[in-house]
Amino acid sequence: MSDITIAIDAMGGDFGPEPIIEGVVQALDEKRFKAILVGNQDEILSYLPQYYLDDDQVQIIDCKDVISMSDSATDARKRKDSSIYQAVECVRNGEAQAVVSAGHSGATMTLATLRIGRLPHVNKPPLATLMPNRTGGKSLLLDVGAVTDCKVRNLYEFAIMGRAYAKEVMGVENPKIGLLSNGEEDSKGNELTKEVFPILKEIEGFIGNVEGRDIFDGSVDVIVTDGFTGNIVLKTSEGVASTIIDLMRQYIKKSIPAKIGALLMKRKVFTNLKKQIDYAEYGGAPLLGINGCAIVSHGSSNAKAIKNAVFQALTFAKSDINKKIEDELVDNKEGA
Amino acid sequence: MSDITIAIDAMGGDFGPEPIIEGVVQALDEKRFKAILVGNQDEILSYLPQYYLDDDQVQIIDCKDVISMSDSATDARKRKDSSIYQAVECVRNGEAQAVVSAGHSGATMTLATLRIGRLPHVNKPPLATLMPNRTGGKSLLLDVGAVTDCKVRNLYEFAIMGRAYAKEVMGVENPKIGLLSNGEEDSKGNELTKEVFPILKEIEGFIGNVEGRDIFDGSVDVIVTDGFTGNIVLKTSEGVASTIIDLMRQYIKKSIPAKIGALLMKRKVFTNLKKQIDYAEYGGAPLLGINGCAIVSHGSSNAKAIKNAVFQALTFAKSDINKKIEDELVDNKEGA
Repeated sequence: MSDITIAIDAMGGDFGPEPIIEGVVQALDEKRFKAILVGNQDEILSYLPQYYLDDDQVQIIDCKDVISMSDSATDARKRKDSSIYQAVECVRNGEAQAVVSAGHSGATMTLATLRIGRLPHVNKPPLATLMPNRTGGKSLLLDVGAVTDCKVRNLYEFAIMGRAYAKEVMGVENPKIGLLSNGEEDSKGNELTKEVFPILKEIEGFIGNVEGRDIFDGSVDVIVTDGFTGNIVLKTSEGVASTIIDLMRQYIKKSIPAKIGALLMKRKVFTNLKKQIDYAEYGGAPLLGINGCAIVSHGSSNAKAIKNAVFQALTFAKSDINKKIEDELVDNKEGA
Repeated sequence: MSDITIAIDAMGGDFGPEPIIEGVVQALDEKRFKAILVGNQDEILSYLPQYYLDDDQVQIIDCKDVISMSDSATDARKRKDSSIYQAVECVRNGEAQAVVSAGHSGATMTLATLRIGRLPHVNKPPLATLMPNRTGGKSLLLDVGAVTDCKVRNLYEFAIMGRAYAKEVMGVENPKIGLLSNGEEDSKGNELTKEVFPILKEIEGFIGNVEGRDIFDGSVDVIVTDGFTGNIVLKTSEGVASTIIDLMRQYIKKSIPAKIGALLMKRKVFTNLKKQIDYAEYGGAPLLGINGCAIVSHGSSNAKAIKNAVFQALTFAKSDINKKIEDELVDNKEGA
């Protein structure tokens, strides 16, 4: 058995425990690790084949409370019997090396930050997400919503942490780091990005300002921005992609030749396209800079998304990323 | 003849005067107005059929300087013999009611603001752009780059001006106005949007916070944001759209059935899709809040884009928008 244990909030997703447990089972069938499923034991048992319990691959932590999407993140701190609270506790007390949740993302981030704790020198942990690009690769965008109002120090930390993630988890040898701005020229930016620009220039691999379209052209591995802008960029991207696909569907429906054309294109074009832009392929969004690993999955995650989030947690937990972040932030103290 | 005159910077685009003059000629063939073409007379004459000059539909203002994309916007203020400077002067001195330029957008905005002047009570003129949505309609996003660092007053003005544009130029009777944020709940936002939220609540048609994906679902007509975020959203959208189309092309190339399928889908799907998301269909981006009309076109505008920008300028110039902006900003003084 691998020595890695992953705690999974079995209750948090939009579709209840079924796709989550299915995803964990798929992950267990492909890779060696131990899963702790946290949530209502009776519900979990109704979806989980007994085999995994007998084989000690899965342990269940029974708890009755679930933080719903309409609850406040602050509230989550008091509800100690909730599945996300208990899943995070597994990392805090060392039973697990990583936690995966498709539940309330604010609650997950708050609890992971407060209960697991930040790495030394990390001011605020950012949420990072993988964006598909046209070369078939992925670029890391951070922050996408953890730190809405950023200071210079936050963006500097994001750059260091994003670079470490690209190297240690994504396997990019020399990550190119860009600062998201309203133009490529050094002089472009808002007050915040202009102030952080000379500090980021000292970081290895910094290529300067990048624009919205550069996220998708494969020219940059790590894109640094504040959580307000990053969150809007993420949702804008999802909006454009689904609008284009919706419009095509509408047009296809209205024409018989187009319907035949779409059938011919299905396997080699649409399936590949879906695979390339579907977030389920990517897993979830890692919260960086905490003293462990927390993967925040999409609320509407299907089994495949959960499986990939678990794999991502495994890669993260096996990597040296947190040690690297600690070292780099100390080494670069003057960047603060 | 209509009494509207439009001044066009004939030199500013990425492809020189040819597509610009072709676009103006196409516009003249469809609608009644007078065009002032500003730029190198010899070059203009080599593309312009003599007929339009004889018929007094076109006048040429000869000037030799052109502000290039690599020049600074500040520099443009001193170069009085440049095509954009002289085109803006036509509006300043009353010879034209609108100016259209596909040249240096910073120079166009700076000159239009300084030389034509702002409307009373307008602090900073925003650049607005039309975004296609899945209902086949368009939503107005502003600011997309004129005011990088915004204060509460700026966002308030953008909401008033965007609403006026939607009513008077786009013909939307009761425009729905949203504030771009990192979540739909009233409590979401950064410091700036949280501060402006209660002020925008007083504006008729304000529907609250909207997310990146709402830009494209037809649920909101006017989306208010700062120029840094808006510019990134605009370029992100362009990036996602062109990436999806590029990926499809790559996949189609590799498969013969897909190639046949693409041919069958061409007329009814891809042509419609292109029409729906192609900026050339939309014209350009109006700079709002100036004492006249300035349309900033894409540098790579083709003839169709220029034609549509001229039409947009005509609709703007014939409308009451500037009067409405003035009235509303006075009426809503307490919003400041």
